[in-house]
Amino acid sequence: MKNDTPQAKPLDSIFKPKSIAVIGASRRESAVGHAVFKNILSGGYKGIIYPVNPGADSVLGVRCYKSILEIPDPIDLAILIVHAQDSVKIFQDCIKKGVKGVVIISAGFKEVGAEGAKLEKEIAALAIKHGIPLVGPNCLGVINTDPTVSLNASFGRTMPKQGRISFVSQSGALCTSVLDYAKGANIGFSKFISMGNKANITELELLEYLGEDSETDVILMYLEDLSHPREMIDAARKISGEDAHLKPILAIKSGRTLAGAKAASSHTGSLAGSDEVYTAIFAQGGILRVDTVDELFDYAKVFSSRKFPKSNRVAIVTNAGGPGIMATDSCVRHGLQMAEISDKLKAELKKVLPSTAALTNPIDLIGDAQHDRYDAALKLVLRDKHIDGAIVILTPQAMTDIEEIAHTIGRIATKHTKPVIACFMGIVDVSAGTKILEDWKVPYYKFPESASKAFAAISKYSAWVRRPRTIRKEFFVNQTEAKSIINKANREGRKYLNAEETFGILHAYGFPLLASTTCDTPQKAAEAAQKIGFPVALKISSPDIIHKIDVGGIRLNMHSKDEVEKESKALLETVQKKMPQAKILGVTVQKMAKKGREVILGLKRDAQFGPILMFGLGGTYVEVLKDVTFRIAPIRELGAQNMIHSIKTYKILEGTRGEKPADLNKLAECIERLSQLAVECPEIAELDINPLMTYEKSKGCVVVDARILIS
Amino acid sequence: MKNDTPQAKPLDSIFKPKSIAVIGASRRESAVGHAVFKNILSGGYKGIIYPVNPGADSVLGVRCYKSILEIPDPIDLAILIVHAQDSVKIFQDCIKKGVKGVVIISAGFKEVGAEGAKLEKEIAALAIKHGIPLVGPNCLGVINTDPTVSLNASFGRTMPKQGRISFVSQSGALCTSVLDYAKGANIGFSKFISMGNKANITELELLEYLGEDSETDVILMYLEDLSHPREMIDAARKISGEDAHLKPILAIKSGRTLAGAKAASSHTGSLAGSDEVYTAIFAQGGILRVDTVDELFDYAKVFSSRKFPKSNRVAIVTNAGGPGIMATDSCVRHGLQMAEISDKLKAELKKVLPSTAALTNPIDLIGDAQHDRYDAALKLVLRDKHIDGAIVILTPQAMTDIEEIAHTIGRIATKHTKPVIACFMGIVDVSAGTKILEDWKVPYYKFPESASKAFAAISKYSAWVRRPRTIRKEFFVNQTEAKSIINKANREGRKYLNAEETFGILHAYGFPLLASTTCDTPQKAAEAAQKIGFPVALKISSPDIIHKIDVGGIRLNMHSKDEVEKESKALLETVQKKMPQAKILGVTVQKMAKKGREVILGLKRDAQFGPILMFGLGGTYVEVLKDVTFRIAPIRELGAQNMIHSIKTYKILEGTRGEKPADLNKLAECIERLSQLAVECPEIAELDINPLMTYEKSKGCVVVDARILIS
Repeated sequence: MKNDTPQAKPLDSIFKPKSIAVIGASRRESAVGHAVFKNILSGGYKGIIYPVNPGADSVLGVRCYKSILEIPDPIDLAILIVHAQDSVKIFQDCIKKGVKGVVIISAGFKEVGAEGAKLEKEIAALAIKHGIPLVGPNCLGVINTDPTVSLNASFGRTMPKQGRISFVSQSGALCTSVLDYAKGANIGFSKFISMGNKANITELELLEYLGEDSETDVILMYLEDLSHPREMIDAARKISGEDAHLKPILAIKSGRTLAGAKAASSHTGSLAGSDEVYTAIFAQGGILRVDTVDELFDYAKVFSSRKFPKSNRVAIVTNAGGPGIMATDSCVRHGLQMAEISDKLKAELKKVLPSTAALTNPIDLIGDAQHDRYDAALKLVLRDKHIDGAIVILTPQAMTDIEEIAHTIGRIATKHTKPVIACFMGIVDVSAGTKILEDWKVPYYKFPESASKAFAAISKYSAWVRRPRTIRKEFFVNQTEAKSIINKANREGRKYLNAEETFGILHAYGFPLLASTTCDTPQKAAEAAQKIGFPVALKISSPDIIHKIDVGGIRLNMHSKDEVEKESKALLETVQKKMPQAKILGVTVQKMAKKGREVILGLKRDAQFGPILMFGLGGTYVEVLKDVTFRIAPIRELGAQNMIHSIKTYKILEGTRGEKPADLNKLAECIERLSQLAVECPEIAELDINPLMTYEKSKGCVVVDARILIS
Repeated sequence: MKNDTPQAKPLDSIFKPKSIAVIGASRRESAVGHAVFKNILSGGYKGIIYPVNPGADSVLGVRCYKSILEIPDPIDLAILIVHAQDSVKIFQDCIKKGVKGVVIISAGFKEVGAEGAKLEKEIAALAIKHGIPLVGPNCLGVINTDPTVSLNASFGRTMPKQGRISFVSQSGALCTSVLDYAKGANIGFSKFISMGNKANITELELLEYLGEDSETDVILMYLEDLSHPREMIDAARKISGEDAHLKPILAIKSGRTLAGAKAASSHTGSLAGSDEVYTAIFAQGGILRVDTVDELFDYAKVFSSRKFPKSNRVAIVTNAGGPGIMATDSCVRHGLQMAEISDKLKAELKKVLPSTAALTNPIDLIGDAQHDRYDAALKLVLRDKHIDGAIVILTPQAMTDIEEIAHTIGRIATKHTKPVIACFMGIVDVSAGTKILEDWKVPYYKFPESASKAFAAISKYSAWVRRPRTIRKEFFVNQTEAKSIINKANREGRKYLNAEETFGILHAYGFPLLASTTCDTPQKAAEAAQKIGFPVALKISSPDIIHKIDVGGIRLNMHSKDEVEKESKALLETVQKKMPQAKILGVTVQKMAKKGREVILGLKRDAQFGPILMFGLGGTYVEVLKDVTFRIAPIRELGAQNMIHSIKTYKILEGTRGEKPADLNKLAECIERLSQLAVECPEIAELDINPLMTYEKSKGCVVVDARILIS
């Protein structure tokens, strides 16, 4: 038992209880209350377990109690498998008994409708009030394989073997499959948690607990939604990239597609958020997002070995050409770089390999290669400082001494800090070899594609850990001015700010703007245009008109005073005729922006996620290409740069056909200013800068049009 | 033995020989010549086998011959495991002996350099001259599991079990892995062929043979290049979509990425073609292209069941919510449609399922579901005419009667023509169930993602088989005119046609053109402009100037006669100054095209692939987005339509933001005309129509600029 150490944490009551009451423990073999009790009892639990069941004297030979209150000893953890209707009463008994943690396995709560949701809310409130961590309801239970605890408080069929991977799941059923899969694939776990409806304890508290858990090296999650998105980013960042003992976090977030999200929503009764936003959160938290369960465990294998490449230059060593090509395809497709084999390395390889061997990358040892060739080649490859790690492919050919090769790889891999990933292609003939690789703790795969993807995953994680740390910039802005504009509109009951106000706020936050002024007569507009300099654009200014172009409220490319006066007049008349009810402030005269590359900046405040920043390509194709990227504000400098880099058409900003690159620094600055605005002015519900015209490097960018909605 | 049937084919000598000489059969256990001989002998071969080895009296107890010529009986098949240098001589002996087929397993040919390539060429020439099909050299051998033949003429470690899948591989090493994988995954094969260097017999002849093979239902291929791309399209179309007994063809084409192609090229010494073109060929031939070996066999499993959905509406039946969502995500991602559960079906399901069950799609039977619920739900789902097939998910929960459920699924699936795919999530606990599914011939997978992808694959194949059959249109064109233009340029030794000639050819082939005429003086240009109607564009006309814009040879938007005259003069002077050597024919006056959606049409004649047609989005982003698609000419009407539909920005052509759709019929017609031109004028090496300005439906399109290179 470890929960008597000074650093005892609330969740220790769930994972390391000294005593457990199983309320609803049953004598009936098909009952969940039977399965749970039996699993704890036969799982070798190191504490004391008490069955509670008013209708039984004993369960599986253990003396039974009518109520938890009857138990003469103190109870750390109560596990409830009872009717939902009885759960509030029983939870209150648990409080009276002084339990330190509760797991409710029973279903019949939020997931079945309003009545269940009410019960769940009531219990959650009690849990919070009394500071009792509650896992569930509607879950499979929890498992801790630590031999000093050895707790299988679940109704799964299997207790997994001990390992250093912890798994958190929002689907109980998935847990049963994962346990069975792990048994077959010989994967061990440290903690295994089915969260159920997350009435109280969510992925956030579990992540924080596992982050500090000395028995956990890798954290896997299956999620259908996030209860605390912003806090999740911070917790994950710390665990995956800042702590002394870094732990990779891998997650499946299902409900990616609209149809999937619909299924998720009817399943857990929870609101599934937009998939792109989840992608942003995972990126910001350094969480590796994966799509499938086999990917999750493929990656868990390689992350468990805790060897991460310094960069993404991979060498492939193979006894077969075709699989070498397949691995190359896959490496490149997943963002790895095929390491250049230097002339020096080639010369060294030449000495130890036959003349028919291919000394490029993939290094082809030829079909009759035995362990000596693997040994020689792999040693040389790992010694080369331009190579960050290796994928070693074996096909079981006639001459292949599979077991010796496995030992060779294991011996060499153990001595190096560079990652070595094996790909033993096949199942039966290679099985003795993969058993040996397992003993050497070398991650291995059946196919080149999986091996390459695994290498790409650790390379991506390594890049995350090694990323430059940037600060969250704080620009000198005029927050007071911005607030006063917002307050005025608020007092006047307006949701959409007019152009003057919009540009006023952007000005206060230091965005680059076009010279612009709003005039109430055509004459004044003409004079203003003269001052600003031609060509200018004319735009109707009215708090009631959002889509100016739809009411003929825009004139572009005015080249003279006369033209401005004439067209301002025409514009005012046209709009007045079309929108007689609209309050019209006048005509905004604005310097025409020079042609540049158009991008879009946006901010949307979401009830679930908070302020979401958007960056994307502007112009014609934006709606078709949907080439935008998201982050949750606030962001750091690197976050802004990553947003710019991660759009598909980033090349346009980099410059094509001899065009010079765009002013990416200024662009990043604009995103950072938007982030600051998002945080400091929570009254802004939505903001669009479209387009933000971007010019060549060091020539900046300029807001051409914008729109702000306040709440 | 079947090769005495009247329809005996040349390749029968390879797959169904009555007698075999193994030349190079060896007593040395580590020798390939030993392994091959032993495999045939111990594999239960039904014919007679003769070892040939001048240095041995017997091999494995069988009397040995010094030379094939010494064997007293007739020989159908000779298998050579000899030094490359000796191979020509031995091949000549085989000819003398009258063998009907040869497999050369030995390496040392094209793959090792020029000398080996010469030997290989020599042997290939002999094979063709004497009509002897030759498999190899540099291969693993061939296998035929047909019990009337039972031939394992390879040096693989294993004889696979009998099955109805045939596998053709350009990598011998991959074969060894596939055999081992198949043994572990319990997959059977009919024919198994390692092609090696393809000196004579290529994937084309093998495909044709397997297409007619009564023992083969599914054809799998691993390819690094294609020896006969155009013929492959026709052969594959027939086998996959036209024959009485249709056979799905699945292929991996490796060397997809540039780095991968480089590896392929050094590996087989063959020229790997552009990946996009291979994608086109596979699409045109109805070959399903897959990326990885596990995908290949995942798909082979579902195709072997030979049940194909009428359309893509899938229902998911599950005992677990989370996996249901994951399957939904994956179905949608892979182009399937989640079937709508009608009110009628809902009512019926309600009668047989508990109240907590989810009656939407996925249909969630809830965790305690046993076989009766699966039975009731699956029967109802398959009976519904709006549902084309089902994915049935099982997680091994406490109450799950896995084996009974497997039987239930098997019984129901057998009775229906709609495909039923099982997903039994796990390894150990579910294994008894998957064994039962296997007996029922129900394809099953470990994860929802694989099950969904498998359903998507059969749905895609089904769409191919059921596609509307269109004709290859033949337009009434003026081929004579086109030829005479080409011949004239040819006589004058010009490779690039001038504008007059280019538009002359396009005119002859019925492409929609802008009114245009070339004038040798500014005065004539002005008059021509008057006739054509303003605005017009002016372009320099010179056979020596390709990129007109680079030499200031283009003026746009001329609105008057005066302007045309003045600018024509200026244009001619500018160009003459910049390109004093260029022969200038005058100024081309062309009607300005109205603004429309810009697309690109292209033709490139490739030495390996023939005439490649290209279609794509035009305009600014074309280079960054690379949104183009290819086909090999000639194409049918449907092929042209598919090209248009398959670009990523197809939505732009469909119309966004209230825009009307583009004239897709006219666009397709232009592609078909280009296809006809490509076939009828093989002198055209390259042709670009850029842009082809496309207007609203029924308003056609027009060639704005074009360029032709002849050879």
